[in-house]
Amino acid sequence: MRILGIDPGLATMGWGVVDMVGGNPSYIAHGVITTTPDTAFPQRLVSIRRDVEALLSTYLPDEIVFEELFFARNVTTAFTVGAARGVAITACAAYTNQLFEYTPMQIKQAVVGYGHAEKHQVQQMLKMILRLSEIPRPDDAADAVAAAVTHAHAGRASDQFRMK
Amino acid sequence: MRILGIDPGLATMGWGVVDMVGGNPSYIAHGVITTTPDTAFPQRLVSIRRDVEALLSTYLPDEIVFEELFFARNVTTAFTVGAARGVAITACAAYTNQLFEYTPMQIKQAVVGYGHAEKHQVQQMLKMILRLSEIPRPDDAADAVAAAVTHAHAGRASDQFRMK
Repeated sequence: MRILGIDPGLATMGWGVVDMVGGNPSYIAHGVITTTPDTAFPQRLVSIRRDVEALLSTYLPDEIVFEELFFARNVTTAFTVGAARGVAITACAAYTNQLFEYTPMQIKQAVVGYGHAEKHQVQQMLKMILRLSEIPRPDDAADAVAAAVTHAHAGRASDQFRMK
Repeated sequence: MRILGIDPGLATMGWGVVDMVGGNPSYIAHGVITTTPDTAFPQRLVSIRRDVEALLSTYLPDEIVFEELFFARNVTTAFTVGAARGVAITACAAYTNQLFEYTPMQIKQAVVGYGHAEKHQVQQMLKMILRLSEIPRPDDAADAVAAAVTHAHAGRASDQFRMK
């Protein structure tokens, strides 16, 4: 089974792909989808849609996991980040109904065993779990890989994290 | 020139279509796109995308106007309403780059001549301006028609309201 993790954002959307091989997560790829403020907002969203669709057709994931958005500086920021997340979710939901979502705390708990772990602890654990030579960069991509690993660990319990 | 107005929302998204005929707005159609909470969030977004695309191919608007979102009860609501708006904007931006946005106050100012007008005043003025036998219903559809009429009135000044 192949899992795509996504850490949604407007300027930077992290993604990571892992396969489940014999009950263990195996690293496939990671990266970021970026847009810049010099592009008009509607075209940034179109570009995110296109790039997410390209990820889907390139990696053909069986299940897709989002890191849940909790925080925004203010309502205006929440509207724009929510838009980017919504566009990514829509592209994924048109591709599969196997969509899941974990909070940052659930991801830290699953990867490090401690819900208040520091970012660098999560990244070091990811490197060990996936036997990587380096930490996935940038941070948003590492977060997406961590979301995918969390879903791999959740196993049969994952249905409770299905996006509603 | 044909204008599509959209009042974005997750449960109810209003829309209205007017044509500019000899410098005056002429009513074509209005309605709402609805989704219900018993459908999973990702599928609500897919349904909004499909319904907005159907509006575009049915009415073939030249320019599209959104009522700007300002208010949300909290950041969580802003994420979900922002997602619905983002999905609608993406469908429209893939169709045309003629996208505009007006605040509720700008719409009231344009339709009634007073930025703090009450909703029923806006609706009565819409009925008069468009020579309708009834007020457009529900409210979200009336808001979308009002946005389209505002854009019709803006004329050459409309470029300052282009969505950035």
